Amino acid sequence: MLTENELIKFRRELHSYPETGWCEFVTTHKIVEKLRSFGLDPIYGRQVINPEFVAGRNPAKVEEAKKAALDKGVPPEFIESMQDYTGVAAIFETGRPGPVLAIRFDMDCVDVDEAHEAGHRPFDEGWASTNPGHMHSCGHDGHTTMGIAVCNWIQENLDQFCGTIKVVFQPAEEGVRGARPMTETGIFDDVDFFFGNHLGFNLPTGTISPEPGVFLASTKLDATFTGLAAHSGADPQKGKNALLAGAAAALAIHGITRPIGEVTALNVGTLVAGQGRNVVAPNAFMQLEVRGETEELNAYMRDQAIRKIKASADMYDCQVDIVKAGEATEFKPDQEAIELAYIAARNVTTEELARPLGLKLGSEDCTIMLRRVQQHGGKGTFVVFGCRTSAGHHQRLFDFDEEVIGIALRFYQNLIPMIVGIK
Amino acid sequence: MLTENELIKFRRELHSYPETGWCEFVTTHKIVEKLRSFGLDPIYGRQVINPEFVAGRNPAKVEEAKKAALDKGVPPEFIESMQDYTGVAAIFETGRPGPVLAIRFDMDCVDVDEAHEAGHRPFDEGWASTNPGHMHSCGHDGHTTMGIAVCNWIQENLDQFCGTIKVVFQPAEEGVRGARPMTETGIFDDVDFFFGNHLGFNLPTGTISPEPGVFLASTKLDATFTGLAAHSGADPQKGKNALLAGAAAALAIHGITRPIGEVTALNVGTLVAGQGRNVVAPNAFMQLEVRGETEELNAYMRDQAIRKIKASADMYDCQVDIVKAGEATEFKPDQEAIELAYIAARNVTTEELARPLGLKLGSEDCTIMLRRVQQHGGKGTFVVFGCRTSAGHHQRLFDFDEEVIGIALRFYQNLIPMIVGIK
Amino acid sequence: MLTENELIKFRRELHSYPETGWCEFVTTHKIVEKLRSFGLDPIYGRQVINPEFVAGRNPAKVEEAKKAALDKGVPPEFIESMQDYTGVAAIFETGRPGPVLAIRFDMDCVDVDEAHEAGHRPFDEGWASTNPGHMHSCGHDGHTTMGIAVCNWIQENLDQFCGTIKVVFQPAEEGVRGARPMTETGIFDDVDFFFGNHLGFNLPTGTISPEPGVFLASTKLDATFTGLAAHSGADPQKGKNALLAGAAAALAIHGITRPIGEVTALNVGTLVAGQGRNVVAPNAFMQLEVRGETEELNAYMRDQAIRKIKASADMYDCQVDIVKAGEATEFKPDQEAIELAYIAARNVTTEELARPLGLKLGSEDCTIMLRRVQQHGGKGTFVVFGCRTSAGHHQRLFDFDEEVIGIALRFYQNLIPMIVGIK
Amino acid sequence: MLTENELIKFRRELHSYPETGWCEFVTTHKIVEKLRSFGLDPIYGRQVINPEFVAGRNPAKVEEAKKAALDKGVPPEFIESMQDYTGVAAIFETGRPGPVLAIRFDMDCVDVDEAHEAGHRPFDEGWASTNPGHMHSCGHDGHTTMGIAVCNWIQENLDQFCGTIKVVFQPAEEGVRGARPMTETGIFDDVDFFFGNHLGFNLPTGTISPEPGVFLASTKLDATFTGLAAHSGADPQKGKNALLAGAAAALAIHGITRPIGEVTALNVGTLVAGQGRNVVAPNAFMQLEVRGETEELNAYMRDQAIRKIKASADMYDCQVDIVKAGEATEFKPDQEAIELAYIAARNVTTEELARPLGLKLGSEDCTIMLRRVQQHGGKGTFVVFGCRTSAGHHQRLFDFDEEVIGIALRFYQNLIPMIVGIK
Repeated sequence: MLTENELIKFRRELHSYPETGWCEFVTTHKIVEKLRSFGLDPIYGRQVINPEFVAGRNPAKVEEAKKAALDKGVPPEFIESMQDYTGVAAIFETGRPGPVLAIRFDMDCVDVDEAHEAGHRPFDEGWASTNPGHMHSCGHDGHTTMGIAVCNWIQENLDQFCGTIKVVFQPAEEGVRGARPMTETGIFDDVDFFFGNHLGFNLPTGTISPEPGVFLASTKLDATFTGLAAHSGADPQKGKNALLAGAAAALAIHGITRPIGEVTALNVGTLVAGQGRNVVAPNAFMQLEVRGETEELNAYMRDQAIRKIKASADMYDCQVDIVKAGEATEFKPDQEAIELAYIAARNVTTEELARPLGLKLGSEDCTIMLRRVQQHGGKGTFVVFGCRTSAGHHQRLFDFDEEVIGIALRFYQNLIPMIVGIK
Repeated sequence: MLTENELIKFRRELHSYPETGWCEFVTTHKIVEKLRSFGLDPIYGRQVINPEFVAGRNPAKVEEAKKAALDKGVPPEFIESMQDYTGVAAIFETGRPGPVLAIRFDMDCVDVDEAHEAGHRPFDEGWASTNPGHMHSCGHDGHTTMGIAVCNWIQENLDQFCGTIKVVFQPAEEGVRGARPMTETGIFDDVDFFFGNHLGFNLPTGTISPEPGVFLASTKLDATFTGLAAHSGADPQKGKNALLAGAAAALAIHGITRPIGEVTALNVGTLVAGQGRNVVAPNAFMQLEVRGETEELNAYMRDQAIRKIKASADMYDCQVDIVKAGEATEFKPDQEAIELAYIAARNVTTEELARPLGLKLGSEDCTIMLRRVQQHGGKGTFVVFGCRTSAGHHQRLFDFDEEVIGIALRFYQNLIPMIVGIK
Repeated sequence: MLTENELIKFRRELHSYPETGWCEFVTTHKIVEKLRSFGLDPIYGRQVINPEFVAGRNPAKVEEAKKAALDKGVPPEFIESMQDYTGVAAIFETGRPGPVLAIRFDMDCVDVDEAHEAGHRPFDEGWASTNPGHMHSCGHDGHTTMGIAVCNWIQENLDQFCGTIKVVFQPAEEGVRGARPMTETGIFDDVDFFFGNHLGFNLPTGTISPEPGVFLASTKLDATFTGLAAHSGADPQKGKNALLAGAAAALAIHGITRPIGEVTALNVGTLVAGQGRNVVAPNAFMQLEVRGETEELNAYMRDQAIRKIKASADMYDCQVDIVKAGEATEFKPDQEAIELAYIAARNVTTEELARPLGLKLGSEDCTIMLRRVQQHGGKGTFVVFGCRTSAGHHQRLFDFDEEVIGIALRFYQNLIPMIVGIK
Repeated sequence: MLTENELIKFRRELHSYPETGWCEFVTTHKIVEKLRSFGLDPIYGRQVINPEFVAGRNPAKVEEAKKAALDKGVPPEFIESMQDYTGVAAIFETGRPGPVLAIRFDMDCVDVDEAHEAGHRPFDEGWASTNPGHMHSCGHDGHTTMGIAVCNWIQENLDQFCGTIKVVFQPAEEGVRGARPMTETGIFDDVDFFFGNHLGFNLPTGTISPEPGVFLASTKLDATFTGLAAHSGADPQKGKNALLAGAAAALAIHGITRPIGEVTALNVGTLVAGQGRNVVAPNAFMQLEVRGETEELNAYMRDQAIRKIKASADMYDCQVDIVKAGEATEFKPDQEAIELAYIAARNVTTEELARPLGLKLGSEDCTIMLRRVQQHGGKGTFVVFGCRTSAGHHQRLFDFDEEVIGIALRFYQNLIPMIVGIK
């Protein structure tokens, strides 16, 4: 068994080389190496991803990340074996009849520049990000380490269990991109119980909640408008102005009629248009997102946004290509899973710290996996392992109380036998 | 022959009861009565209008105008004989071979409230408008009187002429509505020479110009957006907001890309939308116009406007109905007609006052008639009879130097024999 | 005591001559006459309204309504005594020490054309609206009748009570206009307990709820944009386009950033702009409303709307005048008042029908009165008297189960003694 | 004297290393070296530029260009002596009284990727651009070579002339940026005659026109909007949306009311906004331009654009910084200068090829220099040396008939003595 110190060392190793969604080549390699060191034979890369459902993936960045991984010493044949995709899954077959349990940990970082200044522990202690513009400022390095700890413990105790356990390391959670293509490999199609988790939220360390609150269903969209360039000082009427199409779309989307008293959200986050001051802009690119408390509300918002985008393109005689760049669904946990998790939690922490939280958590694509599990009658929920943080999530000064890693491990040590059964 | 005083009296009679486009029932009756008093048998109403091409006509207002005409003493059987339409034409057949000449005078007023204040001659002398909200502030009362004078003179001298002369009294020139449906009766299909005219522009009285300048081609459009009402405080998402569709269209139309260095114009003049403060507006109505120096430029502007309107409706999931409410084309006068007119003009006024003017004259639907004449090889132009005015055209203090009526008469006395020939 | 039949007769009399907000001259007269018939000396008109705080009042319509009231037989001296304002209050002073209780009933109608068709009871029975375009389709005729019944009963039993009772008949509740100027006369400044009420909602007749649900704070605004006219075919750049300013404001207001998971609402309900197709529009008028679950949220929405309006005016170099046309605040009922009301309700109806409702009720300006009462330590709530209706509120086929009038009377017969005390 | 072949060789040397506006370090060095080889002592860099009036200069790109120049072998002490600015002037003082003549040549390239494909002469012959993304596709390499040829000839014949001759090599003509800061050094304050020139336009080689047509006055603006970031899925109302401010400004600018029948132009060419999909965009950057046939029309367009930008920022509670990034004024050549140029032209080419052209030439900042000269009574014009080109200006396949260099030299050999006089 890895000691707590070894786990913390692994977490900091991950922290020092964070990788963004779909680019986790070094991270995938580290996970696979570690699992192999336990005697496991994990599946990874293309084996755990269905490319047909991949969204929000920039091939040029992926190529860069592969090169960087080679530079970092990842063997070329390992890179080769990934077949362009990241992610890992360890599947423990006991060979004994019993339920199938899946637990998901995520592994990607955020596009934030980590603080390199005194007082920020990762910097002070020398394990801050060495990948500029990238930072584990959401705690997924902690999640991955929890997953490693859980796998290590399962492997050492596997002969006691029944059923099957799948531990999944998901890429590209930020932007809610990775869950769908993992799900579409069929890996959750036989799962009876499913758990995802997240650490932090600056709650008292020791907090464990299988009723954390609300996740919004969400759709991320990219819209690419194509018009026609023309010299604006000579014959602008020969052009088709994609900049104006994009501007009109942005304004119209922000004016979508909102149902009163329902939870919805929207944002056109970026708009980049034009080629030069005196050229009728033939191009515009827009990244947006909509959210809704229910799948239905999210679908309303999405359909309205698409309507506005198409009409704006038409208004300026432009073409537009709309691509889904990520998705999450609403969070509908099962009471049975919640109750089992409370039992496990109370064995690890105080009664007081095992409780509903009522958080508003944005969106989590783990909901896509849970929905698939529920579609065939499985159960599940999402567990928050609260802990103190030095700054808000996604902030450049973010760090977390590493004690949470051991707490999560003990939680799963209590939960897993309850679910799969002891032989 | 009517004396100059009698003509002026007739003009003032017209002035005191102005009627707006498609509502000239009293005016039509006065013209027909006067022509009959000369022994003529004019055609009028439905005989001179092809209803299929009528635009910008409000049936409710037409009904009101008919009632008002009855109140003013127009006989019911005369109203009946008009068959809902206004306008008159006197056709003089000499029975002798020769060219066909058509001259057009217009007869409608402007929707302006005439000044009833001391210093304004029509008020001081007691012949100001008695039809509130309506005023002959463009001088069409003068034009009609010129037409009467010309008919009177032709009739008295008809046995001297060859060929055919058609004197047309057109309704609904404001908003460029009446020319097309008159033209579509075929009345100009055999015309060899065509002349239209306008008085005023505060030029020296005596100015006569067959090269007055530029008229823009123009299209007038009405757009009616239909959405769906909903309670804005309860479930606005069930509505379809036609007010926003109209607003988006207005802004987009004003942003149409304009060819550089070409003459184009546009305006969304009115927008009326909504039913109440707390109702998602299910309705919007918009009146707009576009113009262009050429038919092609006007068509570009029109097509762009229609694109913006349709896309705006689509953006808010509304229906939209777009109706042409008037039209004029570009002005391309013929050199032969211009030269004949100069000859006539120089017999009436000084060399100096018979000259090109370079005016920018907005739009004139007389161009529609001229285009039809030119399509089968006929010639024509448009003559400005300049005269002093007391205020700009369409102003509530507008009045004009009535001497211009006699000048126009003398011009046509010179022109007509040159064209149709003396037997 | 008036019999139930007499009350119903009075309600139908009100129903047959509905008057819109600030125009309730006939209605005021009827109320005052009825109260006087009980031996009361009510205050009314200018006595119960502080004109400084009057919003959304159209002086021309008020004048029309006064004339119509004269035609309906209201004595000129009575009209005179109203001093242009509507509304009534009956103040019952027992002369004995005790709490001050105020109860509010409203009296205006909705701008809806009542159905005159078979199957609609008011039409079938001959008491449908005789004031075209106006209809008691919200049940305020019932409210007023309840108020009359309550006054009748109080007057007959006044010698038993302590304290003071104020029964207020409020004009102009639609558009949330009347409460503020009544409140600003100081009439509620000494009130210890306050109750308002509403009937209907197609609930089972007998439903009585002092916990009806949520009212949104709301602000109604009128914006008048002033630009400069110009001929759009000649020199549009000399104009200042108020139509475009209004259109830009409408779109921008509908794009106000909404706090997520909070209850807010907004609507630009009407927009009227322009003078003619070929005139740069020098004018635009817009009616809008914003709402929020709290006063703070409403203020946020209002301030954002005002920002958008001002910036839009500035964008087109126009002036804008923004006027408050109505207001309501959030609804924060007091537990003590709710409990007293439940006691009274349970004496009148079943336990099951006396319950919280969880309605979303739009906005009610009664909240303005309640807030004033609470500001000096008073208590209150709003009571819904549910009853069956033949169509939704504000619908042309609306009618209600008149049994509710007697139910409301019995509720107040139970409530009033509890509050003011028996001597 | 340099031979024609030597001139062509120099032009091709310039062509193979094009530099964009404000980055012409290598080009400046080449010009200075060449002039020094004639025995001249030109002024350059900071000596010919007033930094206070520099617009559209990107300091980061300037630093890169300086480094690249060092790499290309420009001596560090020469770079040092430029003091961060580019441009050259050769001033020939004869010491004899006489007029002051200034001739301007420009030297910057366009941000276009030159075609590297067979059939494109510069590529085929090995002198295509070696500076990716930069290309002399407007012919300024030819202009600079003409200036070198003219200086060479003047220097060799200086003892024959009177007065003073200033040959100016201007940086940053593209984007109309360089003329103003050169002018503001005072270099043209004593100039009596001024000439600028441009080659190309695919006219017959030999065409020389001192009446080339219309240049539009123009103002280039950069607008930087600053809002406030917020998490769009959590509390968007805490943000200030600069993306929407920019979008609103772009649409409003394109809707500026245009004077009818006047030449104006506008374009928002680029808009870049936002930081991420789920962040309320705190930033937007926009590049735009306006143009007008006269200084007054351009000022109208500029003021309108600034109004729209400021109001849009205000609408979204953002700050905005508007910076002038370039400027040109209208072109008002002097008859006296035109006539002198025609005399020179007819000595070089045929009568037929020395003629007015009626070109619409966009904008040229040479007009800023000419205006300064005219302000103190000087005269001038702009000469087009027509020649065949292989593609339109600014196209990646552009090349020109190098014969035009010798034609321009001969034109100035004829013009210069006429103006400054022979001793």
